[in-house]
Amino acid sequence: MPISANNPDRTSWLHVGKNSDFPIQNIPFGVFLTRDDIITIGTRIGDTAIDLGALHQLGYFEGIPLTDDIFLQDTLNDFIADGRKTWRLVRNRIAEIFDAENDTLKNNIPHKETILFRLDEIEMQLPIQVGDYTDFYASKEHATNVGTMFRDPNNALLPNWVHMPVGYHGRSSSIIPSGIPIHRPQGQTMPEGADKPVFGPSKLVDFELEMAFITTDANDLGEPIPIEEAEEYIFGLVLFNDWSARDIQKWEYVPLGPFLGKSFASSMSPWIVTLDALEPFRVESPKQDPKPLEYLQTKGKKSFDINLEVGIQPKGAKEATVCKSNFKYMYWNMAQQLAHHTVNGCPVNSGDMMGSGTISGPTEDSYGSMLELSWKGTKPLKMKDGTERKFINDYDTVIMRGYCEKDGTRIGFGSVKTQLLPIFNPKKKKK
Amino acid sequence: MPISANNPDRTSWLHVGKNSDFPIQNIPFGVFLTRDDIITIGTRIGDTAIDLGALHQLGYFEGIPLTDDIFLQDTLNDFIADGRKTWRLVRNRIAEIFDAENDTLKNNIPHKETILFRLDEIEMQLPIQVGDYTDFYASKEHATNVGTMFRDPNNALLPNWVHMPVGYHGRSSSIIPSGIPIHRPQGQTMPEGADKPVFGPSKLVDFELEMAFITTDANDLGEPIPIEEAEEYIFGLVLFNDWSARDIQKWEYVPLGPFLGKSFASSMSPWIVTLDALEPFRVESPKQDPKPLEYLQTKGKKSFDINLEVGIQPKGAKEATVCKSNFKYMYWNMAQQLAHHTVNGCPVNSGDMMGSGTISGPTEDSYGSMLELSWKGTKPLKMKDGTERKFINDYDTVIMRGYCEKDGTRIGFGSVKTQLLPIFNPKKKKK
Repeated sequence: MPISANNPDRTSWLHVGKNSDFPIQNIPFGVFLTRDDIITIGTRIGDTAIDLGALHQLGYFEGIPLTDDIFLQDTLNDFIADGRKTWRLVRNRIAEIFDAENDTLKNNIPHKETILFRLDEIEMQLPIQVGDYTDFYASKEHATNVGTMFRDPNNALLPNWVHMPVGYHGRSSSIIPSGIPIHRPQGQTMPEGADKPVFGPSKLVDFELEMAFITTDANDLGEPIPIEEAEEYIFGLVLFNDWSARDIQKWEYVPLGPFLGKSFASSMSPWIVTLDALEPFRVESPKQDPKPLEYLQTKGKKSFDINLEVGIQPKGAKEATVCKSNFKYMYWNMAQQLAHHTVNGCPVNSGDMMGSGTISGPTEDSYGSMLELSWKGTKPLKMKDGTERKFINDYDTVIMRGYCEKDGTRIGFGSVKTQLLPIFNPKKKKK
Repeated sequence: MPISANNPDRTSWLHVGKNSDFPIQNIPFGVFLTRDDIITIGTRIGDTAIDLGALHQLGYFEGIPLTDDIFLQDTLNDFIADGRKTWRLVRNRIAEIFDAENDTLKNNIPHKETILFRLDEIEMQLPIQVGDYTDFYASKEHATNVGTMFRDPNNALLPNWVHMPVGYHGRSSSIIPSGIPIHRPQGQTMPEGADKPVFGPSKLVDFELEMAFITTDANDLGEPIPIEEAEEYIFGLVLFNDWSARDIQKWEYVPLGPFLGKSFASSMSPWIVTLDALEPFRVESPKQDPKPLEYLQTKGKKSFDINLEVGIQPKGAKEATVCKSNFKYMYWNMAQQLAHHTVNGCPVNSGDMMGSGTISGPTEDSYGSMLELSWKGTKPLKMKDGTERKFINDYDTVIMRGYCEKDGTRIGFGSVKTQLLPIFNPKKKKK
């Protein structure tokens, strides 16, 4: 089936600003609360949010096999479970409805009043109920930086790293959408030189610049997904900030991996950009040496050229960009991650989420965490208000953005924006 | 509120065999498919399954604040979310209805025909939709055994182990109820002395004898649960077999912890025994030295005396008991686990599951895994058919059982029983 929604020549009768992440070629999916306090599934063109529940009720998806309430839900899980063929039919139809040449809806004022919202009239929600969340560790530069800092610069990568996309299970319950503030976590740490641990607020709260992909129902218990089929099960991608408390993590993580150092929060951008929309931006993955085992071998372009950046905005100050990276730096691509994840028969379901791991590039300004950017705190970063940061301070807001650009078409993810508040105070809550 | 359902003197008009795990003092909760192919929530007394959906529709829960469809669901999540007060009212009412002195239902034959089932008329299902699954590592004997085998016998425990209940996030999607067979997983391993990894079936498939507790909605993002409140959020417990592929695990787990070596399957017993039903079997936890940090200090009896055993049944042979252990051996109790898990503000929801980690006791026949029982394969175990086992063979069935016994009352968990099939063969499936 051709992805006509990707036609680069199409324009929309809805206004799309020059540098918008959301031209009619994007058509991402999200969940929002409308001005009437109704939760619905929607999409976005330019700065207009489109209520897909209303569009469906008014008959605009006629001929596409969809249940009546598929968009009148508080998560995208059921729609994602419908599979790639349905996603394409829906995206293609939305592109037709909003095509500059099509005035059916354009000229129907009552319908437009029901379907279209300004962004300030809606509130974006978590778009999926995350069943399982897995985090990979797939950037060679990141793994090398961390290995250099904490182990041995001459053997920075552990032996398994070049043979498999190393990953671990993360916590689903603390995944939140952009805009929700979080509290600085408390926990156990072992101060340098101390002989017993102490309890208190984490002193080393960090972001991790990641992207995450969201899957559909893929396989039954016991059945691996062959690598050549893997991308069929990827619905789309989001920006992902995998918040980390480095001091808690350091003390707890041997031998079973990260736990409370990560599970206090992970933030995602609210619009899921489909893998289909990203088709024009495919690039070759980094060369892999040694050659991976057969079940991990991919052909063709399996990586995506997505520009990423991170800003820190102290309270009352302007935002400073602290990192510019790219999703294409990932050593292990998404198809490899999904094939590896299921090679043992582990089931993957609609709404599962797989984080890339921190995406660091080759240069010092492309590192995807404060740990690496400030090199363990030895090189503080300058903020716009003159203050310095080794890690994230209370009341700082961390903002991640991402977009692709090629031949005049820009497809973007918007942003994921999260403010770090001081530790939770139970007395304050009871007031 | 008194837990009248626990009255040890009560008998039921339903038949309960002498060594039954399910006297009227138990009243566990599960989900089953009935002879009419309807999914319902139910309980069990002796060998009789009780349809709580039908009982509720017929008015037997009058006066208890329950939604009409609370038991007509395919998981217990919503009922668990109703909280401890409701669980107690329901258990107490069930005890009254089936009390030998009460003949309201006993004498109502049409009602009994709707409500009661023989065990061979029902099929037990996974009782909860597991949101997040966490596995702890809370048996000192197990952690010491593993540390002795793989690291240094003189420093078998890592430094953090005595200061916190070490845990990691597990995979929810591969949690299955008793009775579902699993396939031997395939994956990457690094053979002893080799210079590159190989792909193939795991050669070291193992069980892990665990129990797991199931929580209700406990806290919001950012808010820790104080340890003295923790048990309020525990609905009940099940037997849990956390299947492990030791060779896959060994190669993959550094530095981010177990992943594919565990995520191919974990099996649970289908009846959730409430924490309330286990009240009479509380015992002191093992003495903790060093004293834990304040947020992990508990008072009173926070452990439970639950006898556990594991059997292996080769195809066509009789079952051999290979391990006898006890839940009371856990160094870190459930309240400590839940307080630790949430101290960083990680939210815990209804249907989340927390595994204890392998429960090994002090003696060689009380170790909770083949890894320990056969001491890395150096001491094979004898089966009833004369064959030997270092790990689990294809077509073996692993059976775990658990029960408490005191002053003539026995409360049990039934069993979790899982057969290991050979690796998945896609050709066989297509036929």
